[in-house]
Amino acid sequence: MRASQFFLSTLKEAPADADIVSQKLMLRAGFIRKVAAGVYTWMPMGLKSLRKVENIVREEMNRAGAIELSMPVVQPAGLWQETGRWDKMGDELLRFKDRHERDFVIQPTSEEVVTDIARSELKSYRALPKNFYQIQTKFRDERRPRFGVMRGREFTMKDAYSFDRDAEAAGRSYDNMFAAYCKIFDRLGLSYRAVAADTGAIGGDRSHEFQVIADTGEDAIVYCPDSDYAANIELAEAVAPAGTRPAATAPLTKVHTPAVKTIAELVDFLKVDIKQTVKAVVVEGEEGEAVLMLVRGDHELNEIKAEKVAGVKKPLSFASPTLIREAFGAQPGSLGPVGFKGRVIADRTVAAMADFVIGANEDDQHYTGANFGRDCAEPEVADLRNVVAGDASPDGKGVLAIQRGIEVGHVFYLGTKYSEAMGATFLDEDGKPRFFEMGCYGIGVTRILGAAIEQNHDDKGIIWPDSIAPFTVVLCPVGYDRNEGVKAAADQLYADLAAAGVDVVLDDRGERPGAMFADWELIGVPHRVTIGDRGLKDGKVEYQHRRDAAATAVAVGDALGYVLARLGR
Amino acid sequence: MRASQFFLSTLKEAPADADIVSQKLMLRAGFIRKVAAGVYTWMPMGLKSLRKVENIVREEMNRAGAIELSMPVVQPAGLWQETGRWDKMGDELLRFKDRHERDFVIQPTSEEVVTDIARSELKSYRALPKNFYQIQTKFRDERRPRFGVMRGREFTMKDAYSFDRDAEAAGRSYDNMFAAYCKIFDRLGLSYRAVAADTGAIGGDRSHEFQVIADTGEDAIVYCPDSDYAANIELAEAVAPAGTRPAATAPLTKVHTPAVKTIAELVDFLKVDIKQTVKAVVVEGEEGEAVLMLVRGDHELNEIKAEKVAGVKKPLSFASPTLIREAFGAQPGSLGPVGFKGRVIADRTVAAMADFVIGANEDDQHYTGANFGRDCAEPEVADLRNVVAGDASPDGKGVLAIQRGIEVGHVFYLGTKYSEAMGATFLDEDGKPRFFEMGCYGIGVTRILGAAIEQNHDDKGIIWPDSIAPFTVVLCPVGYDRNEGVKAAADQLYADLAAAGVDVVLDDRGERPGAMFADWELIGVPHRVTIGDRGLKDGKVEYQHRRDAAATAVAVGDALGYVLARLGR
Repeated sequence: MRASQFFLSTLKEAPADADIVSQKLMLRAGFIRKVAAGVYTWMPMGLKSLRKVENIVREEMNRAGAIELSMPVVQPAGLWQETGRWDKMGDELLRFKDRHERDFVIQPTSEEVVTDIARSELKSYRALPKNFYQIQTKFRDERRPRFGVMRGREFTMKDAYSFDRDAEAAGRSYDNMFAAYCKIFDRLGLSYRAVAADTGAIGGDRSHEFQVIADTGEDAIVYCPDSDYAANIELAEAVAPAGTRPAATAPLTKVHTPAVKTIAELVDFLKVDIKQTVKAVVVEGEEGEAVLMLVRGDHELNEIKAEKVAGVKKPLSFASPTLIREAFGAQPGSLGPVGFKGRVIADRTVAAMADFVIGANEDDQHYTGANFGRDCAEPEVADLRNVVAGDASPDGKGVLAIQRGIEVGHVFYLGTKYSEAMGATFLDEDGKPRFFEMGCYGIGVTRILGAAIEQNHDDKGIIWPDSIAPFTVVLCPVGYDRNEGVKAAADQLYADLAAAGVDVVLDDRGERPGAMFADWELIGVPHRVTIGDRGLKDGKVEYQHRRDAAATAVAVGDALGYVLARLGR
Repeated sequence: MRASQFFLSTLKEAPADADIVSQKLMLRAGFIRKVAAGVYTWMPMGLKSLRKVENIVREEMNRAGAIELSMPVVQPAGLWQETGRWDKMGDELLRFKDRHERDFVIQPTSEEVVTDIARSELKSYRALPKNFYQIQTKFRDERRPRFGVMRGREFTMKDAYSFDRDAEAAGRSYDNMFAAYCKIFDRLGLSYRAVAADTGAIGGDRSHEFQVIADTGEDAIVYCPDSDYAANIELAEAVAPAGTRPAATAPLTKVHTPAVKTIAELVDFLKVDIKQTVKAVVVEGEEGEAVLMLVRGDHELNEIKAEKVAGVKKPLSFASPTLIREAFGAQPGSLGPVGFKGRVIADRTVAAMADFVIGANEDDQHYTGANFGRDCAEPEVADLRNVVAGDASPDGKGVLAIQRGIEVGHVFYLGTKYSEAMGATFLDEDGKPRFFEMGCYGIGVTRILGAAIEQNHDDKGIIWPDSIAPFTVVLCPVGYDRNEGVKAAADQLYADLAAAGVDVVLDDRGERPGAMFADWELIGVPHRVTIGDRGLKDGKVEYQHRRDAAATAVAVGDALGYVLARLGR
């Protein structure tokens, strides 16, 4: 491609409403243009990268035996009513009426339509396993769209759905997709981690998120550097501290703590180690009663874990001020187990503490020297908190580390949730109808580009992995429009690279070197060859990788081979 | 591809609500499945053909210098309000509100978004010409969706938009697209015709439809077998008959014609040649007055032409019974120019008639022997009728023929209609802002598949052109699962064809020959090789093109070369 035949549109400054670096760079580099909140046009440069992602995803899905189809963007409400998602999903599901006042949605995913296909097309166990996928426009009416393509409303998603005879076969389909995802993200050239994730109401251990590692990521990823343990923060288990609880040594002492509402204020006021304090959180039980949960002062309650505790209301509900006042006789900030008649559930770490500081169930009063078994009953014990870096790994193989990630893929075992809701059965070998065992597998195709940039950028702009760069190589001739030697050398190398199947762009716009280099550094083409009059006099051109600090002189005759070698060919 | 790894789903019968042959065959062959009225899932088999169409369109658009981008499916009302289409478009424009009660549409086309891009991105004449295109999901909320993908609601369209400095440059962009479209439809392997079409309010002669020839087509295409004249029926000019009007010979005679309301009844009642009768149509003038239009009894008024007559109300309005009664003193069925005080406009053919039969402006009365100039004033003369086969070609090179067609593409010169409405200007060489001269160019990507089938099918099913068949070649081994020789020969030919880059499918399902052949004949794969035990004993396989009446025996060793030759390679 010659740049003059393509469309470049770079901006010095990103629009003021851009939130994060990937969004700013995609706007500045001319990859996307905003049309409405969370709705973008993919400009020619952006579309080139997007298609490369799509193609990698498509190739690996096909290789894994999945079969592509394309379900409609506009879907009738009827199918969504069958599964109940029509009612259960919030405002993120965009609902509308057609001219005949019939209800429709714009697909955020396609479980309903694909299950409808399965129940009419997959009649027999002989048709199984099957895995259907599409790469299609989705819409999710986010309350507050932001972060560009990372949390847009209209986006492209690859969604796949597997249908199997039984749970064991579904497990193989799951493993197959897991392996395909690893190949996809390997080929995308991204640093990523597959982490175990919560399965919610489905249960089981069959849910993994694929997270692109980036300091700016929204999600916390827990992993063990000494093993292959990895989970998202919602799921990662906080194991009980080693050893037994120390004996009580301090007396229970009530302390006046005026205006102390937070753990930080408490630590500051009492000059105690935060690790000696205990935080009280009150949630509702299934009968609406107050349930007291305790985590160490420096720990955070994990709401997913809290919700899973038997007898706790689902979804998790925090107790109202009224309920708290009735149950404890005090306000939040001064609550604790001493004297409380209800259920007390301590995090495993808290259960191993002695002589701790806790609210006294009187406003502006705390206890120091509190101890279970002596000052109040022994609590129930559960894993209630988020892990922190340095916690022991649940597999016993070291300590946990935490890094930030951006979720770009998810593999999920659905079981018979959708097939039962929609009465989707096949005839099994014994002639009896059985519900399909399903899995669903998503990849946020447009999101991947944002995540790739969050992971790979510098002050000058984007740094694309080769596989998804809009162009792999850019040729920057200095004085293309006025120097015949430069033009001839550039045209020749362009022709050679194109003939070798390299996606190369020749910048024939006649821009001055500074502006030309700045454009391509912003756009993030990974390999650049500069062809200038001065170098050519010595028979040289200059190669520079986007991550290189300086250029390397290469003999003109070696340039093709050198670039191909840098491309790993 | 091995059939067992793909997804075949053929039906013996099409669903009862399928209207036309392409829809029936696409459903029976498993190309599409209905999700809602006018909304379909593209099943794996259909998607394969669809992608081939998309790729041909994309390659030729790129080759023509057009640049691909992707505008959103969901578009904000604001842009549509700028051009007035928000109000002007009927219920076919799907409007909805998001969760914040903001108005949006689902794009039926993208003039507004692309013009918005141009006004912010194309600042200078140096950036021109530019042609942006997308291949994207569209939605048109048809009142009565039907004919499968031919008149669906959700469909895929390639829409391109050119931006130029002036009308002359826009003409070059238009010609460029016209040429690209010819290449596209040539490559698609379809019999088609580019026909001049009406430009409506834009004016000029820059509008062509690309029509796929099919007896079942909705549109009438007018062409001259002896020249390159071609136009759609709305536009095709009906020239004046050769020679001058004969002299009046018959007296004006009033005839009682009880219960005669139609030309057919009139001809039957009076036993006259229909070509001697004149049909009266009354439309409204700009002031709401009655305007009488006359076409020969066997001709049809062309409403597009009628609307173009100066002084006639736009859009064309037929006069109400009340207006007709006031102006003529008679009911429709007995109207005519004799005694009428208003404007009379005769079609060119009528203007050349003498001694004609026409309504007498009294109920149940007609005149025979009517003549202009003698019995009433000379009328205004205009081209008011649809041409018919046998009419002289407007280019004077022979007579016109008519065939049916299906519109699958349209190139259209827009002028400054959208750029003026949206204030989209660039700075011209003289430093002054000018409105972009625009063109728009659509191809109904999904529709093409329906049109291709309407053109190419037989009793057994579809007959695809090579370029857009889901598979180009099918190998049908008889007894693949039980005969090692057959399996080995089939596997070898499959490997050889795949290595040669042929899109080949090997039917390894183990179906019986009859069912296997019927499936692939229905699906319409153009080239088939049957590998059977009996033939192999003589060292032969059987080749049969989908249009061939019988198979041709080919030596096993020659099969690859033979098939490649049949593919034109």
